[in-house]
Amino acid sequence: MKTPVLHLLKDQERRLLAGHCWVYSNEVDVQSTPLKDFEPGATATIVSHSGRWLGFGHVNPRSLICARLISREPSRPPGSALWIERIKAALALRERLYPDPFYRLVHGEGDGLPGLVVDRYADLLVMQISTAGMERERAGIVTALEQVVRPRAILMRNDIAVRDLEGLEQSVEPLLGNVPETLDLSERGVRYLVSPQTGQKTGWFFDQAENRDRLRRFGPAKRVLDVCCYTGAWGLQAAALGAEQVTCVDNSQTALDRLLENAERNQVANRIHPLRGEAFTTLRSLREAGESFDLVILDPPAFIKRRKDLREGTLAYQRLNRLGLEVLAPGGLLATSSCSFHLSAEALLGCVQAAARRTGRGLQLLASGQQGPDHPIHPAIPETAYLKHFVLRALPFPF
Amino acid sequence: MKTPVLHLLKDQERRLLAGHCWVYSNEVDVQSTPLKDFEPGATATIVSHSGRWLGFGHVNPRSLICARLISREPSRPPGSALWIERIKAALALRERLYPDPFYRLVHGEGDGLPGLVVDRYADLLVMQISTAGMERERAGIVTALEQVVRPRAILMRNDIAVRDLEGLEQSVEPLLGNVPETLDLSERGVRYLVSPQTGQKTGWFFDQAENRDRLRRFGPAKRVLDVCCYTGAWGLQAAALGAEQVTCVDNSQTALDRLLENAERNQVANRIHPLRGEAFTTLRSLREAGESFDLVILDPPAFIKRRKDLREGTLAYQRLNRLGLEVLAPGGLLATSSCSFHLSAEALLGCVQAAARRTGRGLQLLASGQQGPDHPIHPAIPETAYLKHFVLRALPFPF
Repeated sequence: MKTPVLHLLKDQERRLLAGHCWVYSNEVDVQSTPLKDFEPGATATIVSHSGRWLGFGHVNPRSLICARLISREPSRPPGSALWIERIKAALALRERLYPDPFYRLVHGEGDGLPGLVVDRYADLLVMQISTAGMERERAGIVTALEQVVRPRAILMRNDIAVRDLEGLEQSVEPLLGNVPETLDLSERGVRYLVSPQTGQKTGWFFDQAENRDRLRRFGPAKRVLDVCCYTGAWGLQAAALGAEQVTCVDNSQTALDRLLENAERNQVANRIHPLRGEAFTTLRSLREAGESFDLVILDPPAFIKRRKDLREGTLAYQRLNRLGLEVLAPGGLLATSSCSFHLSAEALLGCVQAAARRTGRGLQLLASGQQGPDHPIHPAIPETAYLKHFVLRALPFPF
Repeated sequence: MKTPVLHLLKDQERRLLAGHCWVYSNEVDVQSTPLKDFEPGATATIVSHSGRWLGFGHVNPRSLICARLISREPSRPPGSALWIERIKAALALRERLYPDPFYRLVHGEGDGLPGLVVDRYADLLVMQISTAGMERERAGIVTALEQVVRPRAILMRNDIAVRDLEGLEQSVEPLLGNVPETLDLSERGVRYLVSPQTGQKTGWFFDQAENRDRLRRFGPAKRVLDVCCYTGAWGLQAAALGAEQVTCVDNSQTALDRLLENAERNQVANRIHPLRGEAFTTLRSLREAGESFDLVILDPPAFIKRRKDLREGTLAYQRLNRLGLEVLAPGGLLATSSCSFHLSAEALLGCVQAAARRTGRGLQLLASGQQGPDHPIHPAIPETAYLKHFVLRALPFPF
């Protein structure tokens, strides 16, 4: 069967040649290769206007990103051998870096597998597919995962909003074996209970693991505030490190219940103070009550989901960080994050600095972080770098 | 004695209000406050065009940066109490972070002390002064350092080119006690001999310590190439981590002699292969000889010292990284750095990615680094953030 061809307009191959792998629908020569002729998820050969072979890609006429390059070599078409090669390369990296098999195993474009995310919890793999292309390849991908990783169970967590953009339905379904309701996960000696079927993302925020670990570098803090604490990934680490009191704020009672369960499992429940409430409101109450903390952790959900939210979302980050600084003791640390792709690292730092000026604080930036190495960034695909993290210290004087 | 006033032109206070601390000579209202009326290094009150009090600053009419804010509070003028407060705050951060007293103790603007750098080697402090303002405050600073840190020896390493910009002479002089010719330093269990009086910087590159430590995260590499190795800070860590063979390239025989001495002290001399030569030429020879490495470390001196070198320097970074990739084995790691302030992190990554495309390699960015927390960055002063560092993995396929 011959692979159909997708022709680009003149000079529209530049992004692909620079290393990116996305094609936007307005870059396609629809005169010669109408997008509507392609089935959602079909494989095509992508060719420049002048006829230069660029690679194999997955096409989806229903999406603004109408094609994603899958392979840059004519000898390596999408298919079983390619999936096995890519998954082996992804596994080799994680096996080199992680003593225990808990990590993101496949990070989409960052691992040369656009549209596919796989998190690994030992014998359980949790998959997320975000493109029509990968949806069509699903059987082959699952077989390749089984062959390379030999999991006992696979869960499909396709309840992700981004599927709407590709015209795909959302669902959650077990694909293999018995998927547990909860499982045990240990991070730097702290034990957590994780719900792969119902938890946020696939149950755990692996992307912040490296940043949580880096925070240990700064030593124990007496009084800690963990804002948007979820089930306690940050807060319990702070407690384990020696905090006397960790105030954990979240708007979800389910999350706080799990937090307390986790706290008990680690024998630190007496030092964990859950506080149910919306982040901004709760921070204002704490400020009004004159509370102050030696370490303030801000790890909110993405305030900027789409580019059009940029202005308002940026203001939200600025407000949140200002409130965080207002309850930070002199000499204390602010650990602040954003998982909004559209907010650059410079812009997040700008939010913090603006907040510092308004509160008359002097700040020192001690460390910057990004998603961990199990979420590799493709250097030519900025969209693969979404997580920003900073550790700042409040000087005891304005500067 | 009344402090003289320096008036800014209309709207020229913005940078200071945003948190930066520099004033450029074209921002001064020289009609009302002629710069030539100030002695180099004099203290002035800096006031906006509309009369808003901005802070105390050090003025130097001979420099393009004609003033640096020292304090933003009328109650805290430059002087003994201020130096003691600032040095105490700087020391508190380091004592929190470093089990051993080896670190940069004062990082200029990043510690609220523009124009001053102090490196600490246990009982020895090595100072560098880069502004006429700090030169005038020298006696008070030294007294404050003695009072807060109680060192046995102080060395002034004022042999830094940046002093020329302020019309200051270069010199090296002991200020207190007996300054040793060499001293012992231990970093993550590896022992090094350091020459504070004659070595590069103050004898040691503290700024890369955190990045050297992060590299351990990626596990041992069999064959390692350390380009611009100096006295072996990176290479010996790689050997200690288990490398079978570390090729260390430097153009200085003095550096290589010290490298070998350090290698012997750590009982790894049999795995260290010094190679004297210019970085580019040596990399080309290695490539032509078909050599390949599992870890390539590129830590060159700044190729871009002034803004006008940006274009040519960027090309040099691109060439160096391309050569580095050409001798990198599939699956291997590239640890690449730039200490050129004028090259942004994005631009350095762009150089690496351009090199990857030219060599047909797929790359994954695993981690990004900056200078360590003993070199704090002022969030509103980009010039305090000069060091960029990336760890990338070569995929076994182009992507």
